[in-house]
Amino acid sequence: METISFTPGRAFAQSLDSSDELREFRSKFVISDPDLIYMDGNSLGRQPAEAVDRVSEIVGQEWGEAIIRSWGQTWFDAPLRIGDKLGGLLGAAPGQVVISDSTSVNLFKMVMAALDLRPGRTKIVTDDLNFPSDLYILQGCIRLLGGKHILQVVPSPDRIAPDLEALIAAIDQDTALVTLSHVVFKSGYMYEVDAITERAHAVGALVLWDLSHSAGSVPVRLDEWNADLAVGCTYKYINGGPGAPSFLYVRRSLQDSALSPIWGWFGDKSPFTFALDYAPDPGSRRFLGGTPPVLSTLAIEPGIDLLLAARMDRLRRKSVALTSYMIYLYDSTLAQLGFELGSPREAERRGSHISIRHPEGYRVNRALIDEMHVLPDFREPDNIRLGLAPLYTTFEEVYEAVDRMRRVVAEQLYLKYPPGRQSVT
Amino acid sequence: METISFTPGRAFAQSLDSSDELREFRSKFVISDPDLIYMDGNSLGRQPAEAVDRVSEIVGQEWGEAIIRSWGQTWFDAPLRIGDKLGGLLGAAPGQVVISDSTSVNLFKMVMAALDLRPGRTKIVTDDLNFPSDLYILQGCIRLLGGKHILQVVPSPDRIAPDLEALIAAIDQDTALVTLSHVVFKSGYMYEVDAITERAHAVGALVLWDLSHSAGSVPVRLDEWNADLAVGCTYKYINGGPGAPSFLYVRRSLQDSALSPIWGWFGDKSPFTFALDYAPDPGSRRFLGGTPPVLSTLAIEPGIDLLLAARMDRLRRKSVALTSYMIYLYDSTLAQLGFELGSPREAERRGSHISIRHPEGYRVNRALIDEMHVLPDFREPDNIRLGLAPLYTTFEEVYEAVDRMRRVVAEQLYLKYPPGRQSVT
Repeated sequence: METISFTPGRAFAQSLDSSDELREFRSKFVISDPDLIYMDGNSLGRQPAEAVDRVSEIVGQEWGEAIIRSWGQTWFDAPLRIGDKLGGLLGAAPGQVVISDSTSVNLFKMVMAALDLRPGRTKIVTDDLNFPSDLYILQGCIRLLGGKHILQVVPSPDRIAPDLEALIAAIDQDTALVTLSHVVFKSGYMYEVDAITERAHAVGALVLWDLSHSAGSVPVRLDEWNADLAVGCTYKYINGGPGAPSFLYVRRSLQDSALSPIWGWFGDKSPFTFALDYAPDPGSRRFLGGTPPVLSTLAIEPGIDLLLAARMDRLRRKSVALTSYMIYLYDSTLAQLGFELGSPREAERRGSHISIRHPEGYRVNRALIDEMHVLPDFREPDNIRLGLAPLYTTFEEVYEAVDRMRRVVAEQLYLKYPPGRQSVT
Repeated sequence: METISFTPGRAFAQSLDSSDELREFRSKFVISDPDLIYMDGNSLGRQPAEAVDRVSEIVGQEWGEAIIRSWGQTWFDAPLRIGDKLGGLLGAAPGQVVISDSTSVNLFKMVMAALDLRPGRTKIVTDDLNFPSDLYILQGCIRLLGGKHILQVVPSPDRIAPDLEALIAAIDQDTALVTLSHVVFKSGYMYEVDAITERAHAVGALVLWDLSHSAGSVPVRLDEWNADLAVGCTYKYINGGPGAPSFLYVRRSLQDSALSPIWGWFGDKSPFTFALDYAPDPGSRRFLGGTPPVLSTLAIEPGIDLLLAARMDRLRRKSVALTSYMIYLYDSTLAQLGFELGSPREAERRGSHISIRHPEGYRVNRALIDEMHVLPDFREPDNIRLGLAPLYTTFEEVYEAVDRMRRVVAEQLYLKYPPGRQSVT
C-alpha cells in the first residue's frame, strides 16, 4: 500500500479533495445541509439521490398503480437479484448472496445452520471485539440447543486489536464455528482473514464473518477467502437506507446441506403450490423466510450501484487516505489534549472508521453535535467514532472535524453538557 | 347479526353504495385506474393516500436531512408505538403488540417461545386449513428441537371448514401449543375462538393465532379472548404496504417468562450499553430482534389510522354485507355455470374474502385479469379468491366482478388460456 505524506492546514485538505478520483460521487448523494460534517456513515449512510427516485417509483407506480401485479413483475425476484449484485461487490459469484431480514435474524439463521452442519462439536469461538448483539445471538442459540455448546469469547488486550495468537489457539477439533466481525465496530480493526480461515478449516470448523462494518468500505473477497458463511448490514457504507434488510452469504458447496432454521414460504422450492410439507429451494432462496419488506429492500439497490461504479480498489485507496489523514491530524493536534487513538495505526489492519477516545468522550461528542455541526457517534466508554465514507466524505471535512474536536476540548466547550454513558444510535 | 335482503341488478348495488356509511373512506385510497375491479385486498391492500405523503416525509426529511438523528427522534420507538396503535384495533391493551420482522419470523419466535414455556409437552395441534407456511415453520421448529415434538394436523372434511370436534379432541394434556389461522386463507372460514381457547387452557396448552387474514377485516379481541400469542400480516386488510413488517402479540402475563429465540440488540433492555451479555427488556420490546426496516415499518401507520377512524363495528357490518351480497349473486348467476362456493354460508363463520371454485379456476382467473379488468387471485386447486375490503370495495364492484365471472364462463372466454396450477401472489 502506497504511503501518503500529509502537511498541515486546510489548503492541503482542499488540494487532496481536488485531486480525489472519486470526487464526482459526492454529488450523487442528497446533501441538504452542506455545512453539516456528517461522520456517521458507518452507522447510517447518506442517502443516494437515486434512492429518492426509486422509492418514489415503487410507491407511485409499483404499489399505488400495479398493486399486487408488481410481485410478479419486479418484487418477487428482488432479494436474489439485488443479492447477486451485492455479491459482485463482495467477491461472491452469483447464487450465494441474498437480501433478507435483519442482520440479527440472518446471523441467527447462519449460526443455527452452522451448528447443524457440525453436530457433535460443542465450541463456538469469537472475541470481545465482536458486536455485542452478535454475542447475544450466539448466547440465544446456545440456550435454544439445550446449553450443550460453549461460547469462548477470547479477550482482547487493549480493546483495539484482538489477541490473534489466543484466537487461533482457541480454534480446536471441538470447534463448530468461528465467528467474528471482519471490521470491529468500535476500533475499526480489520482481521487478516487467511490465518483464521486456514486454522478453522484445518480443524474442520466453519467460519462466519459479520461484514456489517466492511461491506462497501473495504475489499471483501468471500469466494477467494474460502468463507463459509457471512452476514452484514446494508445501511452503513452501502447506503441502503435506515434499517434496510441485511444480506447473507452461504458458500455454494454448503447450500445442499445447510438449512435455515426458519422454514418460511419464501424459502420453499415452490411457494405458490401451497403443499403442506416444506421442501427447501435447492439454491440460495432456501435462506429466505417470509415476505420481504419491499420498500426497504428495493431502496438498497441505488447504493450498491454507486459502489460498483466507484470500484472497490478506488474506494479502498481513498478510504485509507482519509483514515491516514485523520490519524495524522490526530497526532498533530489532538494527542496533546487528552485524546487517545482507538484505532490501529497500520492501514492494512484498519476499516473506514476511526475511533478517537477521550475521558470526556460522551460530552465531547455532545458538544460536537450541538455546537460544532459535526455528527460522529459515541460508543461506551469513551469512543468518539468517526466514519469516513469514501463515496462522499471529503478531506476538508476530516480537517474540520478534527479541528472542531480540538476546539471543543481546548476551549472546554464540553463542560456545559452533563456526563452520560450512551447515545441512541 | 341483522339479515339483509338483496335484489338483482346493478341499480341495487348502486343503492347499497349510496347508503354505505363507510363510503367516504374509498377516497382516502390511491385509485389510479377507476375501472380496475381490485379484489385482492386480502393479499395486498390498496395504498392509503396518506402513506404516499408519509413515505415522502421519511425519505425527504427523516432519512435525507436528519439522517442518523431520526433514530432518536422518530424511528427507535416506532415498533412499539405503532404496535400499541394496532393493538387498539385488535383488542389488546398497550404493551403487548409490537411490529417486527416478517410473519414467518414472528411465528417462529412465538412457536419457540411457547414450546419453551411448556417443557415436557410434545404435541402441537393445528389443521390442514392453516396457511402452509405456518406448517413449514412448525416443521422447522420441531426439527430444530431434535424431533421430540409431534405435529398433529387435523384434516378438514371439505377444505372449507374444520372438523371442530376432532380439533378439540386433539388438544390433550400432552399439548404444548394450539395454533390456527383465525380466518383461513383459502375458504375464509373464521374460527369460533372461545371453544378452542377454553379447551386449550383447560389442559394447560397455549394458543397462538395467526391473524393475517383477520386483522383489519373482522373483530379481534385478543385480551377478551384470553389469547396467549398472536402474529399477523400488515399488508393485507391493514393496507400497510408490500411486505410490510408483521406484528406479534404476547399476553402481558406471559411476558416475564416468554423469551424470543433470537436475541438481537433491539430486544435487549439497554441496546446502547453494549454489554457483552444479553439481558432481555422486561416488556414487549424483548420480542424485537435486529434493526427494523424503517421505510416499510413507518409506512404501515396510515393504514391503521384509517381502520381506527372507520371503527371495527362498522367495518364488520359492511364486510358481512359485501360477502353476503357476493354469495347472493353467486347463487343467482354462477351456481348454474359449474362454479361452487368455497366459503361458509353463515356470516358468523366468515372473514372478508370469498372463494369461488371452478374446475377451470386457473384459466377463469387469468381471463378475469387479462380481459375483464378484474383482479382476484387464484389458489390451488380451483379457488378464485375475491377479497372484499370494507374500506374501499364497493357493492357495484362486487356486482361487476360476479357478472364478469359469469361472462368468462358463459362465453367460454377462458378457453384461450393454457391450463395451469399456480400464480405468483
